[in-house]
Amino acid sequence: MRAVVRRNRQLVCDEVAELEPAEGQVLVRTLACGICGSDLHALHHMEHMIELGRRAGGLDNGFDPSADTVFGHEFCAEILDHGPGSAKALRAGTRVVSVPATLTAMGVELLGFSNRLPGGFAERMLLSEALVLEVPNGLSTEHAAMTEPFAVGAHAVAKARMDKDSVALVVGCGPVGLAVIGALKAQGHGPVIAADFSPRRRAAAEKLGADIVLDPAVESPHDRWEALGVPKARAAQQMMRLMGQTFGRPVIFECVGAPGVLQALIEAAPAGAQIVVAGVCMETDRIEPSIAITKEIELTFVFGYSPEEFAGTLHQLAEGIIDVSGLVTGRVGLDGVAQAFRDLADPEAHVKVLVEPGR
Amino acid sequence: MRAVVRRNRQLVCDEVAELEPAEGQVLVRTLACGICGSDLHALHHMEHMIELGRRAGGLDNGFDPSADTVFGHEFCAEILDHGPGSAKALRAGTRVVSVPATLTAMGVELLGFSNRLPGGFAERMLLSEALVLEVPNGLSTEHAAMTEPFAVGAHAVAKARMDKDSVALVVGCGPVGLAVIGALKAQGHGPVIAADFSPRRRAAAEKLGADIVLDPAVESPHDRWEALGVPKARAAQQMMRLMGQTFGRPVIFECVGAPGVLQALIEAAPAGAQIVVAGVCMETDRIEPSIAITKEIELTFVFGYSPEEFAGTLHQLAEGIIDVSGLVTGRVGLDGVAQAFRDLADPEAHVKVLVEPGR
Repeated sequence: MRAVVRRNRQLVCDEVAELEPAEGQVLVRTLACGICGSDLHALHHMEHMIELGRRAGGLDNGFDPSADTVFGHEFCAEILDHGPGSAKALRAGTRVVSVPATLTAMGVELLGFSNRLPGGFAERMLLSEALVLEVPNGLSTEHAAMTEPFAVGAHAVAKARMDKDSVALVVGCGPVGLAVIGALKAQGHGPVIAADFSPRRRAAAEKLGADIVLDPAVESPHDRWEALGVPKARAAQQMMRLMGQTFGRPVIFECVGAPGVLQALIEAAPAGAQIVVAGVCMETDRIEPSIAITKEIELTFVFGYSPEEFAGTLHQLAEGIIDVSGLVTGRVGLDGVAQAFRDLADPEAHVKVLVEPGR
Repeated sequence: MRAVVRRNRQLVCDEVAELEPAEGQVLVRTLACGICGSDLHALHHMEHMIELGRRAGGLDNGFDPSADTVFGHEFCAEILDHGPGSAKALRAGTRVVSVPATLTAMGVELLGFSNRLPGGFAERMLLSEALVLEVPNGLSTEHAAMTEPFAVGAHAVAKARMDKDSVALVVGCGPVGLAVIGALKAQGHGPVIAADFSPRRRAAAEKLGADIVLDPAVESPHDRWEALGVPKARAAQQMMRLMGQTFGRPVIFECVGAPGVLQALIEAAPAGAQIVVAGVCMETDRIEPSIAITKEIELTFVFGYSPEEFAGTLHQLAEGIIDVSGLVTGRVGLDGVAQAFRDLADPEAHVKVLVEPGR
């Protein structure tokens, strides 16, 4: 079958081995698969990612970054066949999504970051029957493919300790920031301030329901805290509490993932803020702990999502609680993936590009 | 009256102006006042501390680091006189402690970091009548002077989100680490692992009730997690949860405050650990956010304490719930303060030195 293979830090369209579903697996046809920022990073920096992951004690199941890899972990697919002994609860032709992990006799393969199994930039994949979720009728394939990136937002919001009066600031409105905005509004939180330099991303943030959308080149989002009832200085907060006045906890979602952003937020945030770090900064970063201490900042680093958060996100997409229409700004076949990776270097070019292997 | 004055980055014994209690204030005789690590730092680096404090949006009430300052914020004192109009609920001769802040017509003066009012390294101080707490009978003056540093531990533990099975690791057993150990044990938490290179500090940690006391030069405290039932890797934790097994949340208290410690803890901590940052690192520090993300680490920066935590600590000391006997390893008069500051540069030399201005 055809697939886009990462080989020598390049993406090439090539023929790869056909797949045979083992017991507990289903063979699926990939209908659509989003390109993630982590794919862009991994194309050039996979070795460093693996080294950091090993230092973090993660299981990589012997992943070799110098061997062929087929990316793609944000997919919607269609069941073609079942492995031996299956009860075939979901019959051939059923559209499914899945957390991008397949159980094999060799261990858990992380789809999109495996040498043994292809991810979604291939015509077909092997998924675990126990992990696939049927896409509800009425949910389009392209919206179903948003389950994975939006589950990241659901998880980040679950890790935030917001109260009913909390004010949320989402810094960076790329796919992670948009997913956080979607999850915040799906759960009834607000006001939600969103900030991004890109007009296209700001428009997407507004469509997903952000209450205040700012261009940080024009206006600092941190100038809005006071007007939303959150005093920035610790002393002013203590004075309000002494006077029996309450205010919502400020929660900031860092969805940029570049060096320097954390310290800028530590300096600009209101005292007592929780900063949920969802943007993945792969470089060493510098912070001033004493400022974080004086302000009693909390840095909550988040990663991934649970199967329940993934399933809940699929439900919210299907019910229209999160409206992702308009987010797909590009569609390519397998032979267009390499160019799409280059195009995505420009944050203004796209929100989300889908790979449709059957295109 | 006599006081130890910080002047030109040196400590000198000098005569300073007599004090007159205003309305709402009490004049007190300083009985004992501990030397804090922040005093040692402030002697040489006050300007930098003030700059960091201002960047953190703290109120400094016009504090001028180049003007005379009398340090000392960990004190026990005796009421001498009351300001005009006082109901004199606590009469002269009563021993008191107080959060080191005095309300004045000019604003709140932080005792020990003020140009206007002296801290505890002076024969007398002005305190706010509304803030002083009577030292219960039977609590020695030297133990009462431990209220302030031990309130720091109470606050750090209050900010930790421990569950009943939580395992706590206290890294660094200087005064902050010891206060954390005292608060953890006072609240019935455990097991508590304590780690310090200094035999003297390890002995103090053991006396305060730490369950496992280690020399990190001999054994990494992180080798103990598994034996205490806390798997370190995320995958192993997920497997345990899948099998319906539970484990306590790992909580690490960073009580060193030196560059590099945070990143070392991020790398060595079990996945999902909360790191409560109570040690005050005044320098820029480097972290690897991607490792913190993969492990879903939480960094909770803490500072100070509430008046309730301060009062609760006084109660625990008075009831013997926290036993601070043996922690005072040196006592000096005002003319011995400068030498004591030099002695305290050696972590093996002392646990806590008390200044007794009447000595």
